Amino acid sequence: MTTSPLPASTIYLPKGFAFSAVAAGIKASGRLDLALAEASPGTTAAAVFTRNRVVAAPLEVDRTALAATRGRLRAVIVNAGNANCATGAAGIKACNQVCAETARLLGLKAQEVFPSSTGIIGVPLPSQKIIAKLSDLTAALQPTEDGMTQFARAIMTTDLRMKTASARFLVGKKSVALIGIAKGSGMIHPQLATMLVYLFTDIAASPSELQRLLWQACDQTFNCISVDGDTSTNDTVLLMASGKSGIPLHRARTKFSAAVLQVCQSLADQIVSDGEGVKHVIRLSIERARNREEALRIAKAIAHSLLVKTAWAGADPNWGRILAAMGNSGVPIQPDRVEISIGDQIVYRNGGAHPFDEARAHQHLSQAVCDIGIKLKRGGGSVLFQTTDLTADYVRINADYST
Amino acid sequence: MTTSPLPASTIYLPKGFAFSAVAAGIKASGRLDLALAEASPGTTAAAVFTRNRVVAAPLEVDRTALAATRGRLRAVIVNAGNANCATGAAGIKACNQVCAETARLLGLKAQEVFPSSTGIIGVPLPSQKIIAKLSDLTAALQPTEDGMTQFARAIMTTDLRMKTASARFLVGKKSVALIGIAKGSGMIHPQLATMLVYLFTDIAASPSELQRLLWQACDQTFNCISVDGDTSTNDTVLLMASGKSGIPLHRARTKFSAAVLQVCQSLADQIVSDGEGVKHVIRLSIERARNREEALRIAKAIAHSLLVKTAWAGADPNWGRILAAMGNSGVPIQPDRVEISIGDQIVYRNGGAHPFDEARAHQHLSQAVCDIGIKLKRGGGSVLFQTTDLTADYVRINADYST
Repeated sequence: MTTSPLPASTIYLPKGFAFSAVAAGIKASGRLDLALAEASPGTTAAAVFTRNRVVAAPLEVDRTALAATRGRLRAVIVNAGNANCATGAAGIKACNQVCAETARLLGLKAQEVFPSSTGIIGVPLPSQKIIAKLSDLTAALQPTEDGMTQFARAIMTTDLRMKTASARFLVGKKSVALIGIAKGSGMIHPQLATMLVYLFTDIAASPSELQRLLWQACDQTFNCISVDGDTSTNDTVLLMASGKSGIPLHRARTKFSAAVLQVCQSLADQIVSDGEGVKHVIRLSIERARNREEALRIAKAIAHSLLVKTAWAGADPNWGRILAAMGNSGVPIQPDRVEISIGDQIVYRNGGAHPFDEARAHQHLSQAVCDIGIKLKRGGGSVLFQTTDLTADYVRINADYST
Repeated sequence: MTTSPLPASTIYLPKGFAFSAVAAGIKASGRLDLALAEASPGTTAAAVFTRNRVVAAPLEVDRTALAATRGRLRAVIVNAGNANCATGAAGIKACNQVCAETARLLGLKAQEVFPSSTGIIGVPLPSQKIIAKLSDLTAALQPTEDGMTQFARAIMTTDLRMKTASARFLVGKKSVALIGIAKGSGMIHPQLATMLVYLFTDIAASPSELQRLLWQACDQTFNCISVDGDTSTNDTVLLMASGKSGIPLHRARTKFSAAVLQVCQSLADQIVSDGEGVKHVIRLSIERARNREEALRIAKAIAHSLLVKTAWAGADPNWGRILAAMGNSGVPIQPDRVEISIGDQIVYRNGGAHPFDEARAHQHLSQAVCDIGIKLKRGGGSVLFQTTDLTADYVRINADYST
């Protein structure tokens, strides 16, 4: 992988979008917590949502909006500090009020506004605080990198770093730009949980084309990372295309797919490496599974084993725990055929320990990014899955409660 | 539940069993690490093993022995300090050698000896150390509480407390006794992992009757506890019946089932409360699921969520995390119908927060044993599941690695 875990240093702003953010007093810190993006007429959109059965109010409003407009959105409004989840009918009503007022100020229909929320679960959304700031927010809209940066800062909760990624490519003499903005530090803060990702581009594409592309990209990037195995009630990935580059998707399908994949991969990398308490990012390469689904199942069983994650925190080359976790995955592995490597050394093969330099393995696992390879010898399926260690800091942060 | 989380204070020794233990130098500490139980002729047996696909050598030998003898065993030999797992063909051979030598000294067939191992994975079993001590071990056999206590101590690994439980009941003027001996602190020590349970009784029962009883009891007790969600490669529960009480099972089926359940429940309680780093045992009561399997799935999703477990470590009455974990269980819950209570207070109902005294909920979760109730309103299935919090101590213990 050549993507960087740091925010993109060069931002290529797509045409047709303006951004702004204000502090509405939802975050106790008083920081920016309300973000807006406005898109030009004709913008198309597609979204992917959490698979959690418990779904926050804005996601229900989003689904309705996408269906009613047939994938034509004009604005995104995001608040941080309150998830508007498990808030009943009042939560839906509050969300609709925010959208209606935003739409009124922008001269849109309420259903053209896509809302998101992230923060504490079970507390009523302070919609009056939000509504009171909407005229400031709409007045501040600007089609600039500064506006985009403010948007990215406002949606952060426990993130230590702002997360953006960008790509650009040429089609003839015209250029297509794509930017991605994300928040999420692994759903690992008290009562705060969520990954939000917004992708803006100026390519021209139909909502259904965008949807297909977005599913593919999510499957290969955001669905291949895990910090703690918990899926938020608010997870959302949105892709909006203004068409302002003048380039239709069919003229640049391969390049655009690659750009979306690259931006999503960079954002996924940034989310994992910013996971709270994380000392080591582990790149699990699962190979020769029967198929990709099986490889993913093995990866998740390893990534979610507390014994494995705590061993990683200690840079312990404990392959026995990895093997035992694989044995619990539900996949009918044949232990004698499995091969496990740490860094460039094979540590387990032919049903038993394979001689290796333990100090070197410990050294490898002491790095910020570590590689663990698994070969199942069952077929041609593979996956590259990124996860993290589990540190005492993680526990301290998440167990920190004061009445 | 009226069972105590402490070892049984009164031991009722069943007739027909003798016990011993020695230090064979497998544990670095030099403590007792080799245990033997001998059963009288005619003893029947049944066992339940791990569902992990990676299975330690002794379990393969055990399965062969139970099949070859049709459930008639005469001895149990257990070593602690080495799991004899992921040790290839050499591991099977070493295990068979230990059984053969034990059998020779006791005048039995090798297949009448049931071996177990617990400890580090992937290191060759030091069978010569074991074999060198077998004549001392067999010479020390005694049908006494002291012998049984030594057996219970020898099989401990990271357990802080010895785990035994006992029951007795009368049938006419005759009495039937049952003792249970267990080890396991939640599979949460570096490279050490396993729950081993041995149940000895003097009732007379066929192997198939014992097997049916044992499955039922395991299902309701050991399969309803979780510390970290990891299943060991060596987990074993063995039930042996000498028949020496003179009471056949058909004369006391109800009483005996109740005794097995009581002893297994007590051992399960002891294992959970001895889980390493554990500050709080959580009793999850899942009610009104569609069926028991669904209730168990919900319980496990909650019990395995890092966000939930760390909230418990902080005695945080964070019902949002519990609800989100349920939403990820794969069970099609209807969030609006779910009810969550902490101690005697309802905290979530009708799709939103239910007003409750937060200080009192925090107080309840600060206790050593805490109750959390979930009602799904989907049917009549229920389960009582015991699990633990996840503390920084757990991570420290399991991440502690020095080259």
